[in-house]
Amino acid sequence: MTQQSATVNRRIVLARRPQGEPLETDFRLETEAVPRVGPGQILLRTVYLSLDPYMRGRMSDAPSYAKPVELGEVMVGGTVCRVAASQHPDYAVGEWVLAQSGWQDYALSDGRGLLRLGSAARHPSYALGVLGMPGYTGYMGLLDIGQPKPGETVVVAAASGAVGSVVGQVARIKGCRVVGIAGGVDKCRYAVEELGFDACVDHRAADLAGRLAEVTPEGIDVYFENVGGKVFDAVLPRLNPRARVPVCGLISAYNATEPPAGPDRLPALMGTLLRKRIRMQGFIIMQDYPEGFGEFRQIMGGWLEQGYIKYREDIVEGLEAAGRGLIGLLRGENAGKRIVRVGDET
Amino acid sequence: MTQQSATVNRRIVLARRPQGEPLETDFRLETEAVPRVGPGQILLRTVYLSLDPYMRGRMSDAPSYAKPVELGEVMVGGTVCRVAASQHPDYAVGEWVLAQSGWQDYALSDGRGLLRLGSAARHPSYALGVLGMPGYTGYMGLLDIGQPKPGETVVVAAASGAVGSVVGQVARIKGCRVVGIAGGVDKCRYAVEELGFDACVDHRAADLAGRLAEVTPEGIDVYFENVGGKVFDAVLPRLNPRARVPVCGLISAYNATEPPAGPDRLPALMGTLLRKRIRMQGFIIMQDYPEGFGEFRQIMGGWLEQGYIKYREDIVEGLEAAGRGLIGLLRGENAGKRIVRVGDET
Repeated sequence: MTQQSATVNRRIVLARRPQGEPLETDFRLETEAVPRVGPGQILLRTVYLSLDPYMRGRMSDAPSYAKPVELGEVMVGGTVCRVAASQHPDYAVGEWVLAQSGWQDYALSDGRGLLRLGSAARHPSYALGVLGMPGYTGYMGLLDIGQPKPGETVVVAAASGAVGSVVGQVARIKGCRVVGIAGGVDKCRYAVEELGFDACVDHRAADLAGRLAEVTPEGIDVYFENVGGKVFDAVLPRLNPRARVPVCGLISAYNATEPPAGPDRLPALMGTLLRKRIRMQGFIIMQDYPEGFGEFRQIMGGWLEQGYIKYREDIVEGLEAAGRGLIGLLRGENAGKRIVRVGDET
Repeated sequence: MTQQSATVNRRIVLARRPQGEPLETDFRLETEAVPRVGPGQILLRTVYLSLDPYMRGRMSDAPSYAKPVELGEVMVGGTVCRVAASQHPDYAVGEWVLAQSGWQDYALSDGRGLLRLGSAARHPSYALGVLGMPGYTGYMGLLDIGQPKPGETVVVAAASGAVGSVVGQVARIKGCRVVGIAGGVDKCRYAVEELGFDACVDHRAADLAGRLAEVTPEGIDVYFENVGGKVFDAVLPRLNPRARVPVCGLISAYNATEPPAGPDRLPALMGTLLRKRIRMQGFIIMQDYPEGFGEFRQIMGGWLEQGYIKYREDIVEGLEAAGRGLIGLLRGENAGKRIVRVGDET
């Protein structure tokens, strides 16, 4: 891994808009001088960078809820940083902060939009996962839209991932039967043996629908949708009347360049929603739930400490590996929350 | 119109399951003796029979939220009846009741599931429309799932129909901009001039999407879905972030025998729900809102009396015309709530 320099800022910019799956050549590594702190500013040094499926969307210029990354612009991303220099009265050198400073070593900030993590954060990188946006997404989407009740069956895909693992473990805390769907035997074993899921189905298995039916004998009351595609197809016929479907991601479709072939199943979906009186609702966590993040961090922090919630990171070493790391994430190659170690903690 | 007899019960049974659009030969008129009242029973004489789109679903044996009408069984349907004979302590001869006695002149009841309308009901047939299931569907679906706020834009299709006309007028009472979609110039004029909609678009017009965009300059916040098909296609791109879509019917698809050709737009719909954080929710009125019907009737009764809500009936004369009446309803030939006058009020 290339060491962070005190004088040179490495930054990864969007070089090309991908067609379908991103390529490493869609990114470009540039260098510049580390920017100098002005009055009221702090200099952030990136220690951890989060890699998340939504980043694929920002690489395209199709209309979406957030504006795309422009060509030549630094790729966006959540980061955990230390304050490397400060001319801001509220920030001292060495403090940890959660920021949105993107794929680079250094960034200036005036303090807006930062979340302070203290000077002696125990697991600072957790703020990118179980104690950050992914964890909050799983927690709030499940509880507010999913409304799980004890004894109900909750199904979540990408079960070993940053969002899915929180959804399943919170559902378990709420007294639900929890079934995961994941890619591969290892991830499924992890979901059942480590995370305490009641069952987990490998979506690469030949008969996904049949396997899912076996482990959801009483149907599905909440399906937390974060993948789409053939997993959704297998889930749809198992949904119970009055089921709730929070929709927070559709990773299986992010690389798609055109709509799939027919028949057109949109009318059938609408018919199912009607006949079974299902609620489907999309949400974007910080736009829809800007208020509850602090409370969430308290509750989740407690659960982590008490061992009710387990969490695993999949660490990619070095900023220069971030592009490859994102491509692999979109293929499901990660085991746990994928982050990039950009620099040393100390 | 054939007169009701005091001794013969005419009943229309399902003769064949339709393929696509129902035919008159899918129904069969039979006669039998009027049944005799036993202890604890009352004999109902049908005065009005409701015709509703859901009836098409009951003619098929595809899985649905309600069991199908069996071949040879009397067609189901809501009715407004008078008590013709009684051996029940709580019912007197001459009382009006709302029942589910189906497509026939007479039926026995033990009183369960009846709603009493008194002895001097002013507009007894209204209990099949604006003061009955269709009105309650429009009212509750709009208010509970749609959550309309003053100044928001509400769009409803089948705007001149039993459900749509209530949705639009209640939305207007709530301070919304109301846009209808209806089939034909006359229905649109009625929606605007009589019902007070802000605009109404003819779905037979060449450029439905363009016309809809013109009259929803600030997008659509609530779309009350009761038709599906090309109307939904025109609405979808106009939905605002956080829009709500109550789904109570899909009349355009009821006669469909196979899924339409591709491309498959299901993934695109899911993507739209996610990006715009839209809530779609199906509901079946009496299963999901069994409690609020009495309160609804009070509120809606008051609005009718004060002239805030207008209501129009489209009366088909005679039980023998019921099949033809339903076929026409599914084609959108009705002007207002379609009911069958089966017998005299007195």
